Amino acid sequence: MSKNDKAVILLSGGLDSATCLAIAQSEGYELNAISFRYGQRHGYELERAKALAEKFGVQDHQVIDIDLGQFGGSALTDSSLDVPKNENVDDIGDSIPITYVPARNTVFLSLALAFGETISARDLFIGVNALDYSGYPDCRREYIDSFEKMANLATKFSVESTKPIRIHTPLIDLTKAEIIQRGLGLGVDYGMTLSCYDPREGGVPCGHCDACLLRLKGFRENRLSDPSMR
Amino acid sequence: MSKNDKAVILLSGGLDSATCLAIAQSEGYELNAISFRYGQRHGYELERAKALAEKFGVQDHQVIDIDLGQFGGSALTDSSLDVPKNENVDDIGDSIPITYVPARNTVFLSLALAFGETISARDLFIGVNALDYSGYPDCRREYIDSFEKMANLATKFSVESTKPIRIHTPLIDLTKAEIIQRGLGLGVDYGMTLSCYDPREGGVPCGHCDACLLRLKGFRENRLSDPSMR
Repeated sequence: MSKNDKAVILLSGGLDSATCLAIAQSEGYELNAISFRYGQRHGYELERAKALAEKFGVQDHQVIDIDLGQFGGSALTDSSLDVPKNENVDDIGDSIPITYVPARNTVFLSLALAFGETISARDLFIGVNALDYSGYPDCRREYIDSFEKMANLATKFSVESTKPIRIHTPLIDLTKAEIIQRGLGLGVDYGMTLSCYDPREGGVPCGHCDACLLRLKGFRENRLSDPSMR
Repeated sequence: MSKNDKAVILLSGGLDSATCLAIAQSEGYELNAISFRYGQRHGYELERAKALAEKFGVQDHQVIDIDLGQFGGSALTDSSLDVPKNENVDDIGDSIPITYVPARNTVFLSLALAFGETISARDLFIGVNALDYSGYPDCRREYIDSFEKMANLATKFSVESTKPIRIHTPLIDLTKAEIIQRGLGLGVDYGMTLSCYDPREGGVPCGHCDACLLRLKGFRENRLSDPSMR
């Protein structure tokens, strides 16, 4: 990369995207971020995204309203559906869970691509990981590679640019424990992040949804407690 | 296709998407449609989209709010920029014009994919055409093919389905004149459609933007007048 290349980081306010932000910073990119008010059950994660953007000195942080709940079909956007809760991480099933949101990463990456085009940013960062994840199809490397190919044909900026659009997935092959290790090395304050699908009043993590359980396991494997659960 | 397969048609209310709707109907699909309030300069085309959906007996018509104008960068979403006007179609330049909206078809197709997933529709129709068009990169066949590949890796529905997601582009190799011919054969009332980028009060086409000029040329080549200009 050249100095001062611009990156757009998909920033949910969770553990993974906060780590992604820190990695993009450590690689020398000018940081720009995009977050989504997409009809999720709660707004706490957006507050965390804003705080993280401020802490990391993000240049331009766009919060986009796009109601994916309009279509229905996910426990993350439909409060009449229950978010599955379990006692421990081994109870998480193998099939794609009801917290799956239709085409979410495709919609989010498309909007990141649009935002990137308007600021001439060709490096997009998304904190997907294919290990310790919830089985979502749009977190796999073959999906990301395919999106990247499409992106390079899609926009005025990508077809006119001499350098390609790149979708960076620095966490894709890491376990949750490794992600945490990486982030702690870069000084990420995980107490500022929220991963829970269904937090209690005030943004207190439930401790039992897939996101909480995977995260707790990651901290436990690092012999740490999760600072967001204090 | 099987009888009663569901289609999702991207319906702007313009000439091309109305023709697409008629073609999907003629092929026997159950019609569903998606339209976007994306920050465009005027709301007239959405009124036309609604009227067309009603006329064609569309099962489920979703109108999605997504403000692509938030990022700036296009004369279609920024009323401080002028839409280029010309006297005739040969004056339209070769470069990608200022009416280009960043990543628009990628965002729209992504949301069509999401909507399709929630109703189990794997056939998406988009009225792009690569002839008599405005030079947008996201109207070319290689872009559409690439989006289709990505879509088949992106969703729970696409990875679990035995049949692939298909992006139908029945107009892609047709001239505007041929599109009009096709639509008239299927009984499309083009007086109900609006293609103009910058209509006057009441939704009267300006007659001089690229969209108006290309459309007028199409009708002229059919020795017809444009019924929307009456």
